Amino acid sequence: MKIYLAGPDVFLPDAVEIGRRKVELCRSYGLTGLYPLDNAIDLSARDASLDIFKGNGAMMIEADAIIANLTPFRGPGADAGTVYELGYMAGHGKLCLGYCNDPTLYADRVRKFTTVEQQDGRLVDVDGLTVEDFGLSDNLMMIHALDLHGCTLVTPPQAPADLWHDLTAFETCVRMAAERLGAAPARASR
Amino acid sequence: MKIYLAGPDVFLPDAVEIGRRKVELCRSYGLTGLYPLDNAIDLSARDASLDIFKGNGAMMIEADAIIANLTPFRGPGADAGTVYELGYMAGHGKLCLGYCNDPTLYADRVRKFTTVEQQDGRLVDVDGLTVEDFGLSDNLMMIHALDLHGCTLVTPPQAPADLWHDLTAFETCVRMAAERLGAAPARASR
Repeated sequence: MKIYLAGPDVFLPDAVEIGRRKVELCRSYGLTGLYPLDNAIDLSARDASLDIFKGNGAMMIEADAIIANLTPFRGPGADAGTVYELGYMAGHGKLCLGYCNDPTLYADRVRKFTTVEQQDGRLVDVDGLTVEDFGLSDNLMMIHALDLHGCTLVTPPQAPADLWHDLTAFETCVRMAAERLGAAPARASR
Repeated sequence: MKIYLAGPDVFLPDAVEIGRRKVELCRSYGLTGLYPLDNAIDLSARDASLDIFKGNGAMMIEADAIIANLTPFRGPGADAGTVYELGYMAGHGKLCLGYCNDPTLYADRVRKFTTVEQQDGRLVDVDGLTVEDFGLSDNLMMIHALDLHGCTLVTPPQAPADLWHDLTAFETCVRMAAERLGAAPARASR
């Protein structure tokens, strides 16, 4: 069984190494992790971004499930590319799992970026735009996609010291995926 | 033919009115606009967010296409809920269209939010995370999804005075959707 490993991990300085660790964790649970950077892309090519898109798309079609890293990226919510991929996999009827290493609520995170206040019964930001305030970790479309198309979002009780390299919540997702997909763990044979 | 009208428009103070204008524009091109706020949701209900998710999901299944408002929302990139929906519709093989009323490039927008510099051949932000620098308006997954699953992102030559209420780029999307879906314009009969 194959798992597409989505997340802004690909933007980390040690993006290849974190992918290797994720693939290895999948293997220990009897699953094959598909990591975007394992596609061979010539970044100097004129159509590099299109090649990345096509490579990721092919991996998603091949995969049975997605584990999306929804840890907030460059703002109060998840990385857009990861969110697109979660939607794409949900649209394809694949098993959807995700984790967020920041356990705070979306509305509380927005407060760190901008002034937020109650106005006419709505929670609004400094631009007068409504701040979703349903007690969820992020936009309701992603959170409930996980609830209904896979497994509820995994969050740690408190943020790990290293938000980008702690794979505890990721491993919980891998374990749940293995259970749901009926994979045979490789651990006993090591 | 039915068009799902995705976007952070639902977070505007005049969210209902902007939806009414969008639906009316669709009608003038012979299309039926489906706007999330037209679902009757009791926001005081315990499961309000789940009801919204289910309502939006049902609208997307019913729709033949999506027009996504990808104007940057609360950060350098598009609204996460909208991006999820674009992915979901692409995954379902529906026609995908989108517009962004901010014509600047993603990398330039990131510069407004944080310090960005070249480091070891990569453009990185203050946290050392790579900033996508392919000369695109937003994350490549969304931009190329539009290229390959519908019509190229529509952006104005310069940002309109009212980023949230100017529907020129939206109307371009409606026109393209009508052409692609073979809708009969309603204008002549008015």
